[in-house]
Amino acid sequence: MVKVAVNGYGVIGRRVADAVRLQKDMELLGIVKRTPDYRAFVAQGKGIPIFAPDAASKKKLEDAGLKTSGLLDEMLRRVDVVVDASPEGKGEENKKLYEAAGVKAVFQGGEEHSISGLSFVAQCDFEAAVGRQFVRVVSCNTTGLCRTLKTLDDALGIDEALATLVRRSTDPDDSSKGPIDSIIPDPLELPSHHAEDVRSVLPSMNLVTLAVKVPATHMHLHALALRVRRREPEAALAAISKEKRLLLIEGKKGFKSTSNIIDYAREIGRTRNDLFETAIWRESVKEQGGWLFLFQGVHQEAIVIPENIDAIRALSGLGTKESSMEATNISLGIGR
Amino acid sequence: MVKVAVNGYGVIGRRVADAVRLQKDMELLGIVKRTPDYRAFVAQGKGIPIFAPDAASKKKLEDAGLKTSGLLDEMLRRVDVVVDASPEGKGEENKKLYEAAGVKAVFQGGEEHSISGLSFVAQCDFEAAVGRQFVRVVSCNTTGLCRTLKTLDDALGIDEALATLVRRSTDPDDSSKGPIDSIIPDPLELPSHHAEDVRSVLPSMNLVTLAVKVPATHMHLHALALRVRRREPEAALAAISKEKRLLLIEGKKGFKSTSNIIDYAREIGRTRNDLFETAIWRESVKEQGGWLFLFQGVHQEAIVIPENIDAIRALSGLGTKESSMEATNISLGIGR
Amino acid sequence: MVKVAVNGYGVIGRRVADAVRLQKDMELLGIVKRTPDYRAFVAQGKGIPIFAPDAASKKKLEDAGLKTSGLLDEMLRRVDVVVDASPEGKGEENKKLYEAAGVKAVFQGGEEHSISGLSFVAQCDFEAAVGRQFVRVVSCNTTGLCRTLKTLDDALGIDEALATLVRRSTDPDDSSKGPIDSIIPDPLELPSHHAEDVRSVLPSMNLVTLAVKVPATHMHLHALALRVRRREPEAALAAISKEKRLLLIEGKKGFKSTSNIIDYAREIGRTRNDLFETAIWRESVKEQGGWLFLFQGVHQEAIVIPENIDAIRALSGLGTKESSMEATNISLGIGR
Amino acid sequence: MVKVAVNGYGVIGRRVADAVRLQKDMELLGIVKRTPDYRAFVAQGKGIPIFAPDAASKKKLEDAGLKTSGLLDEMLRRVDVVVDASPEGKGEENKKLYEAAGVKAVFQGGEEHSISGLSFVAQCDFEAAVGRQFVRVVSCNTTGLCRTLKTLDDALGIDEALATLVRRSTDPDDSSKGPIDSIIPDPLELPSHHAEDVRSVLPSMNLVTLAVKVPATHMHLHALALRVRRREPEAALAAISKEKRLLLIEGKKGFKSTSNIIDYAREIGRTRNDLFETAIWRESVKEQGGWLFLFQGVHQEAIVIPENIDAIRALSGLGTKESSMEATNISLGIGR
Repeated sequence: MVKVAVNGYGVIGRRVADAVRLQKDMELLGIVKRTPDYRAFVAQGKGIPIFAPDAASKKKLEDAGLKTSGLLDEMLRRVDVVVDASPEGKGEENKKLYEAAGVKAVFQGGEEHSISGLSFVAQCDFEAAVGRQFVRVVSCNTTGLCRTLKTLDDALGIDEALATLVRRSTDPDDSSKGPIDSIIPDPLELPSHHAEDVRSVLPSMNLVTLAVKVPATHMHLHALALRVRRREPEAALAAISKEKRLLLIEGKKGFKSTSNIIDYAREIGRTRNDLFETAIWRESVKEQGGWLFLFQGVHQEAIVIPENIDAIRALSGLGTKESSMEATNISLGIGR
Repeated sequence: MVKVAVNGYGVIGRRVADAVRLQKDMELLGIVKRTPDYRAFVAQGKGIPIFAPDAASKKKLEDAGLKTSGLLDEMLRRVDVVVDASPEGKGEENKKLYEAAGVKAVFQGGEEHSISGLSFVAQCDFEAAVGRQFVRVVSCNTTGLCRTLKTLDDALGIDEALATLVRRSTDPDDSSKGPIDSIIPDPLELPSHHAEDVRSVLPSMNLVTLAVKVPATHMHLHALALRVRRREPEAALAAISKEKRLLLIEGKKGFKSTSNIIDYAREIGRTRNDLFETAIWRESVKEQGGWLFLFQGVHQEAIVIPENIDAIRALSGLGTKESSMEATNISLGIGR
Repeated sequence: MVKVAVNGYGVIGRRVADAVRLQKDMELLGIVKRTPDYRAFVAQGKGIPIFAPDAASKKKLEDAGLKTSGLLDEMLRRVDVVVDASPEGKGEENKKLYEAAGVKAVFQGGEEHSISGLSFVAQCDFEAAVGRQFVRVVSCNTTGLCRTLKTLDDALGIDEALATLVRRSTDPDDSSKGPIDSIIPDPLELPSHHAEDVRSVLPSMNLVTLAVKVPATHMHLHALALRVRRREPEAALAAISKEKRLLLIEGKKGFKSTSNIIDYAREIGRTRNDLFETAIWRESVKEQGGWLFLFQGVHQEAIVIPENIDAIRALSGLGTKESSMEATNISLGIGR
Repeated sequence: MVKVAVNGYGVIGRRVADAVRLQKDMELLGIVKRTPDYRAFVAQGKGIPIFAPDAASKKKLEDAGLKTSGLLDEMLRRVDVVVDASPEGKGEENKKLYEAAGVKAVFQGGEEHSISGLSFVAQCDFEAAVGRQFVRVVSCNTTGLCRTLKTLDDALGIDEALATLVRRSTDPDDSSKGPIDSIIPDPLELPSHHAEDVRSVLPSMNLVTLAVKVPATHMHLHALALRVRRREPEAALAAISKEKRLLLIEGKKGFKSTSNIIDYAREIGRTRNDLFETAIWRESVKEQGGWLFLFQGVHQEAIVIPENIDAIRALSGLGTKESSMEATNISLGIGR
């Protein structure tokens, strides 16, 4: 039984916490939360122990009526693996605490590759993470790209890849950020950094990425163009079908937009309408002139959750890539 | 065990179907669905029998790989109560079928009051529906208004009410309708019809409504001004707290916008992020010059679901208002 | 010839600057701008002298290739009236500079009433501003409310007024702020401060205001309910028709939403699609039970521009309310 | 003096009509309009004669208070060139009328290439249109692509091109269409038809296009990847700078998103905030591995207006490509 804690309880942290609770080989020791908002109260209602990052936060949480189980450093003394889901860029600072406490840690894609020296997507490099102290799960966009590129490179051979990322601008529970009616090239200086981040997982991938942000909250959409050696869209579809973390969807079954993908997640009863899989439109998978094209949707809130669970197992030396991914998949309803 | 079927499997129908399956005194006989989209496949995956409205649809469903359990008229022969969740305005036509088959039916707020002569909100007029053949659950906006107005009229006495409805324009799974960046007075000719619809449930309510549509998909927001006899916001809050289908939320706990309300429904694990309750902001409940003000959020996809379940019970003569509402609440997690 | 300068060149400043250039009795001495963006380059292209707020900004502007005409304090030595269009809350600090330089100043609605002791809407209190050193033009929402309330109070007698403000969330050229798909009660504690701001212009107005923000950029929409002594919508329409800064629009002529109002401003050739008038929907003006209702649209970028011009004239003692408003109207195409 | 009429007065028609009125060698004989909305009243206010498509529409226009100058067929007897700006797909039917009347006609990109056998972008194939009876100006997206591809092919040599079109979903004055919070692959089957449409103008362009629709109304954004023979971004920038219908913009001057481009058009005083030029971000023009990348913005309402004017001149045999484009540019403020 691996003792896991989650440091940070935002978009990723709260999902990882719930996913950990579904694993038979893990125990959720608690979460670290700073603000006494409804998310904290719901966590408490679920019986999740809440730790405060510091004494001031502890007082604020308790004044608001929450029960706390202590401070972050007390938590670190009792835990095997911390999932660091603190705000982007805070990981480097937290790493020192984890080193001092001698605990293992999974960082998120908001941190640099150098924080752990190993960037992780279960399908691609689970084995490399086995037994390490630190690993970094890559960002939602990078995870979505790696899964598809790895699958299709194995099946068809990719000589060159171009991806345009049409990114949601903020998450559904944030009403402060925009844009409301605008398209933002981001980054403006081309190409974008996402390709380099993919190469932190798939070093030889000859990929270029371009990215824009649009007024949407639910999913990223990626338009991919892949120069393939084996020019067979049917082989691509077969490979996609076999990989459980990829989900083939069809326009003719009502998947007209990213909205329908989220609606599908709601229909199948996923908690928080989480789509852990990368959704690829069957009709979009076409070949022309040596290029294979496709559209895929990436649920930014959910896609990295299975990778976090697998990363915990890899660090803890629990099982193989296959056994871990299978356990994670079953617990989260992936591939059902 | 009341045998229930749901005719129509859109936004309301699929939620009613799942809610029926949670009731101990009801059995879901099946649904009527026309289009072989992902919603149908998911329903089949849940083990819900699918009936076709006609032979042509049956063929279309089966050609797409779905199993059907027969046609609508066969279904009507076996059912006690139909929940008619067909597209707005189709109810009048369907009513003839229900009359011919001698089955009871619950219609939705898209139909006229005259379809059943009784418009229904559980809290307000459950008893009047007991044993009838037909009843009409009112629309999402009307349900949200009736619950709050009834509660506060009982507690404070309302002499006059003004409500401005800031309506979401379409549902989250619809990507065809707008507006994208615009505010639409709708209806343009003031006042709006919503007040009259409220009076189909609460005949003496001296209410005027104004309505606009805005680029949002998740919730309606109502701004209410109520001229009250008892000028006591604390009494209003106490009454709201007691009524389980009203949910007091607080800005200081992170409920900054309708987005947070939906996010809260996701956090507490509600299927399809459904908020069956009317959410009222505690901080907004204020009195000035004899007017009591408040803001409330109405989840248009979900708010009428408990009323549909209670309406089935009322028509079937199953229990009292209190016992039915309590059973419904427990099954849906309301008031937990 | 009144020598005018504009301190700040954002949404309001650039419009005031252009409007000043259209007046026969005013001369635009220059603007104060801090950032070398396209707005500055376009201003320079129009021949508008650019002053820098300080030496560091001057260098930055010049390094970017702009010509500057000196610093703010040099400008203040040569000017009669400054329109302060600096960021909200900077006015109080700037006021000291204007006092030291002995120049008159027009502040905007982002400042407190106390900055000048006189809040200004031309129609309502032009005369009170004549000859003063300082005056404050009220915000877009307040200006829109004051114009309509003053007109209808004169015509019908208003005993009580309730206004729900459905506010655009940010301006069209801002792509950072949201929300994207949400409705925000703002302020959450009811009622909103807007009513008090209206009373800084119309002290006896018995008004309550409620406000929400929605994902739109082009216009605010106000839903008004006015308890009137003379229950005659036709008299209301007649009064509205007579007042040039109110514009009657009709749904049956294609004005379905705020988008059409802005499109109308584009059609009639208004620079920057500015609608200086408050647009009131004819069909929405209805009476019921002693309440007069109406919907109006307020173009937040443009509505205060005529008031700024009139405020300059009032401070400078140039003509009467009638002659100033007429000159402003003609120059801006209002009432054509 | 070429006598021109515009059949249809929607987004394109009203802009072409105004542009024709600015040309020294053209006379606007009138427009054909069906609906008596504000657009018709504004046109009348400008002194533009209004013709009705048929007797029923004539009566409707006149009943609404508009003066009509006759019917479409009367207009056709007096005109040299008709610009057909009727709803998409109506061109083929109208063409018969134009043939019967023996008038020349310019069709829009909503029609098939086969309607005229010549698809037109001034820069690319002006000469081919000289003296013909019919020509088709291509769509906004195709025009934007052709201008850039032609310019860069001439300057650098393009071996292969990939373009992802992030399209605005509807125009700013339409509040009926969405999506509100969704990304739509459109068309879903890849690649999109846009590349073929580009080849109707530039037959040998080795281009593939992918397209999505997003919740925005103001501009399309294109992400281009061009495999070039001459790998010199500086040469690309030089070529772009020289071509007046391309406009280099800079992020560092405040052009952060498409919103700023439209705001720029407002600042420089363009009627209806029209940006006739294709706007290319200087910072985005980068080369890597033989690919030249760039982002460009296309104002869908305005970009084809100069092409329509040039097309009229080409059909009428008025001057050369260079003289026509220069006259058009000067009249519309392009390249100032």
